[in-house]
Amino acid sequence: MAERVVKAVLDGHVASRTPIWMMRQAGRYLPEYRAVRATAGDFLTLCYTPEHAIEVTLQPIRRFGFDAAILFSDILVVPHALGCDLTFEQGEGPRLSTVTNLNELNALSTELDASKIDRVYEAVTEIRARLPDETTLLGFCGAPWTLATYMIAGRGTPDQAPARLASMRDPAFFAALIDKLVEASATYLIGQFRAGVDAVQIFDSWAGVLDPEAFEQWSVRPIRRIVSAVRAEIPEARIIAFPKGATQAGLTSMALASGVNGVGLDWTADRRAVRGALGGRFALQGNLDPLALIAGGAALDRAIDTLMADFRGAAHIFNLGHGIRPETPIAHVEQMIRRLRG
Amino acid sequence: MAERVVKAVLDGHVASRTPIWMMRQAGRYLPEYRAVRATAGDFLTLCYTPEHAIEVTLQPIRRFGFDAAILFSDILVVPHALGCDLTFEQGEGPRLSTVTNLNELNALSTELDASKIDRVYEAVTEIRARLPDETTLLGFCGAPWTLATYMIAGRGTPDQAPARLASMRDPAFFAALIDKLVEASATYLIGQFRAGVDAVQIFDSWAGVLDPEAFEQWSVRPIRRIVSAVRAEIPEARIIAFPKGATQAGLTSMALASGVNGVGLDWTADRRAVRGALGGRFALQGNLDPLALIAGGAALDRAIDTLMADFRGAAHIFNLGHGIRPETPIAHVEQMIRRLRG
Repeated sequence: MAERVVKAVLDGHVASRTPIWMMRQAGRYLPEYRAVRATAGDFLTLCYTPEHAIEVTLQPIRRFGFDAAILFSDILVVPHALGCDLTFEQGEGPRLSTVTNLNELNALSTELDASKIDRVYEAVTEIRARLPDETTLLGFCGAPWTLATYMIAGRGTPDQAPARLASMRDPAFFAALIDKLVEASATYLIGQFRAGVDAVQIFDSWAGVLDPEAFEQWSVRPIRRIVSAVRAEIPEARIIAFPKGATQAGLTSMALASGVNGVGLDWTADRRAVRGALGGRFALQGNLDPLALIAGGAALDRAIDTLMADFRGAAHIFNLGHGIRPETPIAHVEQMIRRLRG
Repeated sequence: MAERVVKAVLDGHVASRTPIWMMRQAGRYLPEYRAVRATAGDFLTLCYTPEHAIEVTLQPIRRFGFDAAILFSDILVVPHALGCDLTFEQGEGPRLSTVTNLNELNALSTELDASKIDRVYEAVTEIRARLPDETTLLGFCGAPWTLATYMIAGRGTPDQAPARLASMRDPAFFAALIDKLVEASATYLIGQFRAGVDAVQIFDSWAGVLDPEAFEQWSVRPIRRIVSAVRAEIPEARIIAFPKGATQAGLTSMALASGVNGVGLDWTADRRAVRGALGGRFALQGNLDPLALIAGGAALDRAIDTLMADFRGAAHIFNLGHGIRPETPIAHVEQMIRRLRG
């Protein structure tokens, strides 16, 4: 078997050629994605139709030869499979039925709806079969904190105040919601590993609104519990945490206390400080500003060069510091790859 | 003259009784503010009518006896006084005419419109005359980076991508815009000091979307230039910077490199780490989560106790980590003051 470099870096190896993938690499900046989307109908249909999910997951690998494919899906599949209503309005983001008290929490399913998640596992198995042997396949889920913010507010809000307030006002409900999401997320990731992913990423997209104590309580500890539960079934499971907006201390704590193999850095993270705090061999992923990829030209080259110098000698997976934006020119992605590959 | 404790803490003194004020303390959570607002008409009329600006600035001092009053105004007064159209739509936030290239920048006024800012200075002088002698009067302005983000996008956006992109794509325009805002802001703060403020706060509300290098370039350095220009005219000028969302390294750099007397911490800041990095006598302001003030009860008491323990022995000004929200119960503000004053 060819070496899967992303996987190797997650084991602490420093790659001779830094592996590359991009968050949201299967997405709207690609005309071939937009073509599938036009026939598939709405976003959730795309997620739950293996034929489409497989195709769009493979598209960026075919076009760019990235070192990892990431399953095309959405973090809100877990609340949806627990019984929350979920829609995606064009240009509006997700809308969920809300869960704001113990009664509403207890009304959710006890099990993930197999008619939904089995479609995801089916896609995973087929993607793995079709991927080049050397390409790592990543699964993912949303972190409990981030899922809770959407379930409580029913949508994204500027700083997810409804969930922060619920954690203060009704800690018993909030802790029970997190417990449920820890359990469901672990089950979901175990299912993805059994279906064939090589590693998974846990997206804590709203970690940045938490104060340091709340970050430990609601980001690090729930992720640690997921890692433990997954490793109990899949001892070799490789796991990346991406606590977007985490402070340097938060990233360090996530790396050292949660049991993950790597942490993702967003574009605001201080690479050198985090590296200094963690040493060279803990896997670090990131963190090109997605806007540099829109800007292109000398600004892009310079941003890449600085980033690669900062990560030189580290167990580093190249990525963006946030998802690629739909308006990104493909020529700039090509420029990025040329700059990285020489 | 009675000692103005906020001013003394900005000189590095550790107060025997920690001084208190709250960002947005003159605002919609107060019925007496809503009453003035109902008669004054729109928000900008309120800002530019000294009678009203004076009244709403004094309201929270009368009701709560805070140690500082902060001028009622808005950071977008500076772009407005430079010639940008500005409106505030109910529940929509600000809308400005955009400035996206050198031509549009050069079309702005060279001077701040006296018919606008003289009304602000007039209010300052009268507020100082009416305030208790021991109450510090704070003026303020927006930081150049934050003002630039609104001027380029014409509004607030989730992560102020338009300005970040402009700084990469058209660095000559972007630097010229920042230069203009540095100069205008320094002029405006000097005017406020001459009119009677004791100290000023520079709000960099969007500092958190900048990467570390951009933070140095677009937050720390422009603020340092403003500090230098203000001190050239007002050598004793006391200045607080509030770079919301700054990392620990960013807060440290702002404190040590910009020349300010104090830094404001938002609710996500790691108090102990920042204190450790800066030592005990640099003034630190903050940082109660405004949501704890909505929650009230034991959660509020506990948040206050932890905060005060972390800042014990420091040159500390108690404040929120962000503006008080309109839905905050006044009884919780009273609870907060009792907890702090004993």
